[in-house]
Amino acid sequence: MSTSDWLRTEIGATTADSITIRGRDLAGELMGRITFTELAFLLVQGRMPTPEQARLLDAVLVSLADHGLTPTVLAARLTHTGAPESLQGAVAAGLLGAGSVFLGVVEDAAVFLAGIIAAAPTDSDADLGNAAAAAVAARLDSGRRIPGLGHPIHKVEDPRTPRMYAIAAESGVLEPNLRALRMVADAQAARTGRALPINGAGAAGAALADLGFAPAIVRGFALLARTAGVVAHLAEEMEHPLGMPLFRELDQRLAGEEP
Amino acid sequence: MSTSDWLRTEIGATTADSITIRGRDLAGELMGRITFTELAFLLVQGRMPTPEQARLLDAVLVSLADHGLTPTVLAARLTHTGAPESLQGAVAAGLLGAGSVFLGVVEDAAVFLAGIIAAAPTDSDADLGNAAAAAVAARLDSGRRIPGLGHPIHKVEDPRTPRMYAIAAESGVLEPNLRALRMVADAQAARTGRALPINGAGAAGAALADLGFAPAIVRGFALLARTAGVVAHLAEEMEHPLGMPLFRELDQRLAGEEP
Amino acid sequence: MSTSDWLRTEIGATTADSITIRGRDLAGELMGRITFTELAFLLVQGRMPTPEQARLLDAVLVSLADHGLTPTVLAARLTHTGAPESLQGAVAAGLLGAGSVFLGVVEDAAVFLAGIIAAAPTDSDADLGNAAAAAVAARLDSGRRIPGLGHPIHKVEDPRTPRMYAIAAESGVLEPNLRALRMVADAQAARTGRALPINGAGAAGAALADLGFAPAIVRGFALLARTAGVVAHLAEEMEHPLGMPLFRELDQRLAGEEP
Amino acid sequence: MSTSDWLRTEIGATTADSITIRGRDLAGELMGRITFTELAFLLVQGRMPTPEQARLLDAVLVSLADHGLTPTVLAARLTHTGAPESLQGAVAAGLLGAGSVFLGVVEDAAVFLAGIIAAAPTDSDADLGNAAAAAVAARLDSGRRIPGLGHPIHKVEDPRTPRMYAIAAESGVLEPNLRALRMVADAQAARTGRALPINGAGAAGAALADLGFAPAIVRGFALLARTAGVVAHLAEEMEHPLGMPLFRELDQRLAGEEP
Repeated sequence: MSTSDWLRTEIGATTADSITIRGRDLAGELMGRITFTELAFLLVQGRMPTPEQARLLDAVLVSLADHGLTPTVLAARLTHTGAPESLQGAVAAGLLGAGSVFLGVVEDAAVFLAGIIAAAPTDSDADLGNAAAAAVAARLDSGRRIPGLGHPIHKVEDPRTPRMYAIAAESGVLEPNLRALRMVADAQAARTGRALPINGAGAAGAALADLGFAPAIVRGFALLARTAGVVAHLAEEMEHPLGMPLFRELDQRLAGEEP
Repeated sequence: MSTSDWLRTEIGATTADSITIRGRDLAGELMGRITFTELAFLLVQGRMPTPEQARLLDAVLVSLADHGLTPTVLAARLTHTGAPESLQGAVAAGLLGAGSVFLGVVEDAAVFLAGIIAAAPTDSDADLGNAAAAAVAARLDSGRRIPGLGHPIHKVEDPRTPRMYAIAAESGVLEPNLRALRMVADAQAARTGRALPINGAGAAGAALADLGFAPAIVRGFALLARTAGVVAHLAEEMEHPLGMPLFRELDQRLAGEEP
Repeated sequence: MSTSDWLRTEIGATTADSITIRGRDLAGELMGRITFTELAFLLVQGRMPTPEQARLLDAVLVSLADHGLTPTVLAARLTHTGAPESLQGAVAAGLLGAGSVFLGVVEDAAVFLAGIIAAAPTDSDADLGNAAAAAVAARLDSGRRIPGLGHPIHKVEDPRTPRMYAIAAESGVLEPNLRALRMVADAQAARTGRALPINGAGAAGAALADLGFAPAIVRGFALLARTAGVVAHLAEEMEHPLGMPLFRELDQRLAGEEP
Repeated sequence: MSTSDWLRTEIGATTADSITIRGRDLAGELMGRITFTELAFLLVQGRMPTPEQARLLDAVLVSLADHGLTPTVLAARLTHTGAPESLQGAVAAGLLGAGSVFLGVVEDAAVFLAGIIAAAPTDSDADLGNAAAAAVAARLDSGRRIPGLGHPIHKVEDPRTPRMYAIAAESGVLEPNLRALRMVADAQAARTGRALPINGAGAAGAALADLGFAPAIVRGFALLARTAGVVAHLAEEMEHPLGMPLFRELDQRLAGEEP
């Protein structure tokens, strides 16, 4: 037992009269002094973001928080229909669908870009461009889609993308994932003859990578953002239930009745 | 079908070239201009917080985000041990334990205080104090604990509580739940002869209620805060696994071997 | 560490060349010799059921496994839409709605009946009837519904109920919860002048209690039964997706388009 | 709306006086006549199993139900510590870790064997053997493990495996996945010079495939089996809590105190 060196955490500690997070006193140094977004950055990376980094992370979280009545929001609201006493269960159900089809794109883009950056000898536009072209070609040749490009609704331009690039540029955090993602889009258009817009999830994944988050944890910030949206939908569900009437309508239609 | 008036949401909408949240253009009006905390307030309440309200909400979220290796964090890390490919599953597991024993206190306090405020003819100290004394007496007489008082570790004072009150006072948002909670603590001490500190969860619940959130959704903000902590622990788990060695140690101890 | 007497389980153990469950050799004594239902009984109670008890438990599980496109099944299928790579997440989402509104009735009935049986001096019809009448009166007087009675669709008779009573009678396991539940229904009809049928969930809860399960774990068997239904719906979802077209139809209707 | 042909399910239907599952009357034809295992087969495949198939499916479910205090069971018990009022949340947490590291092997083996069988011109031993050798070689050459072989504890033989083969042989259901799995083990031993035992999860996956289940749903039966084990552990947790003392011990060790 004396050698359980695995039993440790750098994140926080509590004693009878203090709570510390990443070595900072929670009550004295953090509460009232930093935003929740800055705390999330601090919790994961162990260091405080600059104001510019915090602004970009806020923009990422704001961009991912809500997308209306998505399948995952419907799952959360239908779960609340059956178990209104367990808000945490409804929120959990709302996160469980954040997989490969929807929010997974944020992580997929970050992983794809990390491979391109690792393959480029330097971060110069020329080297990144060559690496992007090679990665895009390899992926298209194997019949796979390019993560971060295209959107079922925003076919010409995802409105979140130029805004994210502008904020990153103002923040001076346009290095190198967001740059590489543009080269990916260019390489895709050149190779297929058909341009696809960079989608908001892809831009978010690139921005999170540029903020220093490992690709494997990038999806965690999409989940954090989505939690705010799910909580809002559950608050609305309490006032204007959608789950039960949806179930009833489907039940009537299944039975061949006019709903 | 024409009369499905249940099928609506006030939270957000998407068209081919715009995304709006609560009537505001996501890219143009929100990204880069508001924090994630302000967005969460806007999503749930449909209106923007004042800077003072945003600061208090940030303080609440910061105070609740992490408490070290709690049972729920352990559940999240052990879930990651078995399913590292599904980050959303590990985060969901980390939220499912946020029930009556731990985070439920945030909601319980808000519900208890709402009853006191509803019973008081006015928000004057005298009326709130009488209502608090009556509610505390009724609850103690039925053998139940007072939500928001006492803490297993912070026996004298929870360091988050005075800080929360100070921030609320600076924000001018000390009305009336946080005030009533102090009267609850006084009434409990007077009746039992033993003072218990207001705990951080109770102060957070009162602050959320003073910010205008319905008691039934207050737990949602505790879940939002906790998501950031769980994500941080999962990022740490990827680097320094705790789930597998914990399982192995327990397995060896069960088998009667020296771990 | 030497005194960690909490670290033990009576359920099972594994060594390099054997696996035992409740003291029985898994490969030699259980596989091929007992049904999964018998194993579930053994796992929870630590003893084997009689053939009659196993038949009744099978009937309970069969009766609770599927109810069509319920809100929880819809939640599971919509979760699969977003995360098809994580079957466990979709199954978990399908269980999270098994709360107070639907499956909770199984537990509520068992708890209510346990109170009646505890209040009756003996298990005689006269004593149980008196205790049932008193419990029903107290509950109706406080404006609450009687758990296990009434059904939104099966208004006259739930077809599962007489069948469950018949199987229990054949099994000789009609003591005393199922008997008390009939007295509850009689007392409710006598007091309100309007008979309500015993619903399938109530009969299942009473049967599980008569089989020796503690009220607090009764819901676990409803969850076990429901898992089979959810898995079947997810198998169907893989072949004939319902989640994505449902989302698309709602999205179009929200946008005011003809679906 | 008239064309919502996606809105249908073959699994079950309910009217005011009947409940049917796969076209069979629940009360009259299923309750009291079939086991829960037979129902699970019927729900997913739409047809009744033979007695031999039911016996093999029972053996699979029995073999997978419990493995002691695994990481997923620990996650379930720790979730119950924080939210004892929500049994469905604790069960869900216990399933969420059933991913790639543990139970995923059941699915991985079924997928791998399906590829071998599809590649073999016939089901003859010679053709299956050649296809197995090629698949094993390709997988080992790419540095990946063979699903279904090897076990951290049962290094020489997993006791469940010979028993599963014996039951399948008695049932006459040894075609062709279980046969192919043996050839996979032989090919692996021949190529690496080191024999690995077929593990219980691999044998279960092969048996489920031989029973006619698609590889993509095979994991669902592992989840069903595991639900019984998790429910049993939660029943034990209610009597002899392990979650809270485990948390407390870890907390003390983290603080450097003698537990």
